[in-house]
Amino acid sequence: MKDINIGILGCGLVGTGVAKILIEKNNFLTRHTGTKLNLKYVSDLDIKKKREVEFKQGVLISDSIKIIDDPEIDIIVELIGGETIAKDFIIRALNNKKHVVTANKALLSTHGNELVKIARQNKVDLAFEASTAGCIPIIKTLKESHAGNKIKSISAILNGTCNYILTKISTQGVSFDDALKDAQSKGFAEADPTLDIKGIDTAHKLAILNAIAHGIDFNLQDIHVEGITKITPLDIKFASEFGYIIKLLAISKFENNYIEARVHPTMIPLSNPLSNVKGTMNAVAIDGDATGQTMLYGHGAGMMPTASAVVNDIADISRTLLTDSKKRTPVLGFPEDSINKANILPMKNLITRYYLRCFAKDHPGVLSNISGILGNENISIESVHQKGEKINGTVPIVMVTHMAKEENMLNAINQISKLESIPEKPYLIRIEDNY
Amino acid sequence: MKDINIGILGCGLVGTGVAKILIEKNNFLTRHTGTKLNLKYVSDLDIKKKREVEFKQGVLISDSIKIIDDPEIDIIVELIGGETIAKDFIIRALNNKKHVVTANKALLSTHGNELVKIARQNKVDLAFEASTAGCIPIIKTLKESHAGNKIKSISAILNGTCNYILTKISTQGVSFDDALKDAQSKGFAEADPTLDIKGIDTAHKLAILNAIAHGIDFNLQDIHVEGITKITPLDIKFASEFGYIIKLLAISKFENNYIEARVHPTMIPLSNPLSNVKGTMNAVAIDGDATGQTMLYGHGAGMMPTASAVVNDIADISRTLLTDSKKRTPVLGFPEDSINKANILPMKNLITRYYLRCFAKDHPGVLSNISGILGNENISIESVHQKGEKINGTVPIVMVTHMAKEENMLNAINQISKLESIPEKPYLIRIEDNY
Repeated sequence: MKDINIGILGCGLVGTGVAKILIEKNNFLTRHTGTKLNLKYVSDLDIKKKREVEFKQGVLISDSIKIIDDPEIDIIVELIGGETIAKDFIIRALNNKKHVVTANKALLSTHGNELVKIARQNKVDLAFEASTAGCIPIIKTLKESHAGNKIKSISAILNGTCNYILTKISTQGVSFDDALKDAQSKGFAEADPTLDIKGIDTAHKLAILNAIAHGIDFNLQDIHVEGITKITPLDIKFASEFGYIIKLLAISKFENNYIEARVHPTMIPLSNPLSNVKGTMNAVAIDGDATGQTMLYGHGAGMMPTASAVVNDIADISRTLLTDSKKRTPVLGFPEDSINKANILPMKNLITRYYLRCFAKDHPGVLSNISGILGNENISIESVHQKGEKINGTVPIVMVTHMAKEENMLNAINQISKLESIPEKPYLIRIEDNY
Repeated sequence: MKDINIGILGCGLVGTGVAKILIEKNNFLTRHTGTKLNLKYVSDLDIKKKREVEFKQGVLISDSIKIIDDPEIDIIVELIGGETIAKDFIIRALNNKKHVVTANKALLSTHGNELVKIARQNKVDLAFEASTAGCIPIIKTLKESHAGNKIKSISAILNGTCNYILTKISTQGVSFDDALKDAQSKGFAEADPTLDIKGIDTAHKLAILNAIAHGIDFNLQDIHVEGITKITPLDIKFASEFGYIIKLLAISKFENNYIEARVHPTMIPLSNPLSNVKGTMNAVAIDGDATGQTMLYGHGAGMMPTASAVVNDIADISRTLLTDSKKRTPVLGFPEDSINKANILPMKNLITRYYLRCFAKDHPGVLSNISGILGNENISIESVHQKGEKINGTVPIVMVTHMAKEENMLNAINQISKLESIPEKPYLIRIEDNY
C-alpha cells in the first residue's frame, strides 16, 4: 500500500476542516479507500493562529511553493480562494503533474476553461465537488449519475445567505436590511455581503453546474444575474397570496438547443420541493428526460460539510491512482479486507419513543391499569388522548411515551393485551423526531 | 475507440427502458462516455411481444446462455428478477469475467455476500445502483460521496406503493384496503402486494444500503420488519394531532458500535424533510458526522427512472474499462473533444410568467394605462391585486402575467416607468411553476 501524499494550501475554516478529517479520521479513511492518506503539508500565512486541529511539528508552514514543488506530493488542495494567487498556485501544481482539488467557484467560473485545459495537457485531475452546494454531491451526480439523461433543467438554491434572508423576511415580515443584519450577526453573511446578495456567488456556481450538465465551457459572462436586494416583505406577502414563495434560484434549462442560464429571485409554487428549503440550506432539483425530477438537499456551506466534499474528491483521486483501473471503487464501497462483521442491534434493545393505540371497553379504571403497567416497565407517558366516541363498543385510547426500551414496551403490550377491558392487542408506532 | 458490448437478460419494463436509452441515445452516450455502447443482445422468453423499442434483426433472442457465454460481451445486465435463475445467470456471467449490472434487490439482499465474493474472485464489477430508490443515486452517493463521514443514520422512504397508500389514507381518510385497491387500479401496487405492504421490499433495500454505508456484509436476516397493514385512518389522524405524519421508513443508525436496522411505520415530525415526500416518490436522508443532514429525492421506480440508474452503472464500468486509470471521469464529465460551444439563450428571448409590482399615485386611470401598455406588448394579465392602503402616498399594484417574452416585459416596464402616476421603476419577479 503506497501512501498518497497531500498538501493543503490555505488553512482557514475549510482547510482546517479538511486537515481535521485527514488527521482525526485517518484510519477510517484508510479502511474506506484502501490507502493511507498522508497530510504532508498545510500552508498558511498565519501559522501561529490557534486552530481546531493539532498538526505535527513541521506540517503547518507558510511557504506554499515548497508544497507545490515537492515531488512527493500527489494531490494539492487549494483552499485559499480568490482569483489571483490561487490561480497561479493551481497552474503551477497542474504543470507539476499534481492532481488538484479546489472549492474555488469564483476562480473556476471565471478561469475554469484555462485550468481545465492545463489539467488535460498534464493528464491530471482537477476536482471541485466542494465548489458548489457544499456537501451535496451535485458535481458527481451530474458527471456520473445522469449518463443516459439529457438534463432538461436544473433549479437550485445555492446561496445560504440569500436563502436565510428570504426565509427570515418570509417568516417574520422584517425588511431586507434587518434580515441582512440578522444574518451578519449570526455569521451567515459576510461583513461585505455583495457577492452573495447580488446573486454573483450563485452565478459562479451555476456556471459550474451548466458546464458539467451540458458538456460546455464555463460561460459566466452569459449568465443573467439579479440579486435579492429589491425584495420587500410586501412582495413576499403578495407571493404567498398567489400561492407562491420567493427563492433566489439558479436556473439552467435546455430547450431547442438553447440553454437558459439565469439567476434571479423567482416565485415557485408551494408544491415545488425547493419551496421547503429553509434557512441556510441548499438544494438542487434536476429534471432529466429519463429520471424525471430528482432533488438533492443539504448543507451548502460550513466548515465540516464543505471539508467533507473536499475529502470525497481526495478519496476519489486516491482510489483511481491506486486501484486496478477495472475496479476503481470496490463492489461494496469498502475494500474486501475491510468489510466488518455487522453488529446489528437486537430489536429488544432499541430505545425510542412510542405511539400506543388501544381500543378499550369503557370500564372504570382502564386508564389507570394501562398506565400502571407502563410505569412498572419504566415507561413514562408524555401524553394521553382518550376520545369519547365509541367504535364497535370500545373507545380509542392513544398514548405517546417518552424514550423507552422496546423490550419493556413489548412486555407492557403483552400485559395490556391480557386486560379484560382491552379486547384486541394494542398497536404501536415508533416515533423518530431527531431531524 | 473500442466498442463496449452489452447484453441484457430480461426485457420487461426496465429492460425495455435500458434498451431504449442504449439505442435511441447512442450518440449522446458516446459523447458522454467517450465510447460506443453497443447493445449486442437482449434475451426474453417472449420475443414476439410488442415493445416500446425497435430492435435490429437478431438482437432480441430467447437464449440467455448464448449472451452470457458470448466472448465479445463485456457487460451483462440482469433484469430478470427473482432469486433462482437470475442468480445462476449472474454467477455464470461473473465466472465468465463479465461485469454485471443488476437491479435485483431481492437477490442482492439474500445472496449478495456470495455474489460479491465471486465478483471479487473474478476481478470484475458488480453494480446495482438501480436496486435501491430507482434513479436516486444513493448507491454512488454512499460509496463515493461520504468518504470522510461516519454515517450516523439513514432514514429512507424506499417503497412507492406504501408511500402512495399512506399518502392516500392521510389526505383522503380512506381505509387501508380502499387505498390499496386504488393503488392497484393505478398500477402503483402489484396484484399480490405482499412484498411491498409487509415491508419486505423496503428491508431488501435497507440491507443493501446498510452494507455500503457501514462496510458490512448483507444482513437481511437481522433487520426488523413491520409493514403498514395495521395502520388505520385513526392513527394518521391522531399522529396529525400530535404534529406527526406516518411513513414506512427504513432506518439504519450507527451508535455505540451497534447498527440499528429496522423497517416499520414511523411517526416523523412535519419539520423532517421526509414528511414532504408524497405519493410514489422515494427519498433517502443521510446524517454524516461531517456533512450533517442531506436528503436525496426522486422517482423510486418506473421504467425510465430505473433504466436511467442501470445506464449509469453501464457508463461507469465503460469509463473505467476504457480510460486511463488516472482519469476515469473527465474534468467536466464529458471528454475533451465532446465539449460543445454553449448556446446560452439571450435573456431578452426568455419566455416565462411575471409578477410585476408598482407603486402608483392614486390617480384615476392608472390601472388602465398599465394594462394598455402590457397589452400593446402582447402581455396578457392573469390577475391584478390593488390594495387600498397607501404606502408613502402610493398604493401597491401587483399583477401576475401569463407567459410573456422578457424583451416585451422590459419594454413595458420602461414605458410604465415613464407614467406620471408611477414614481419609481416597477419591480418584476419571474415565476417558475413547472415542477
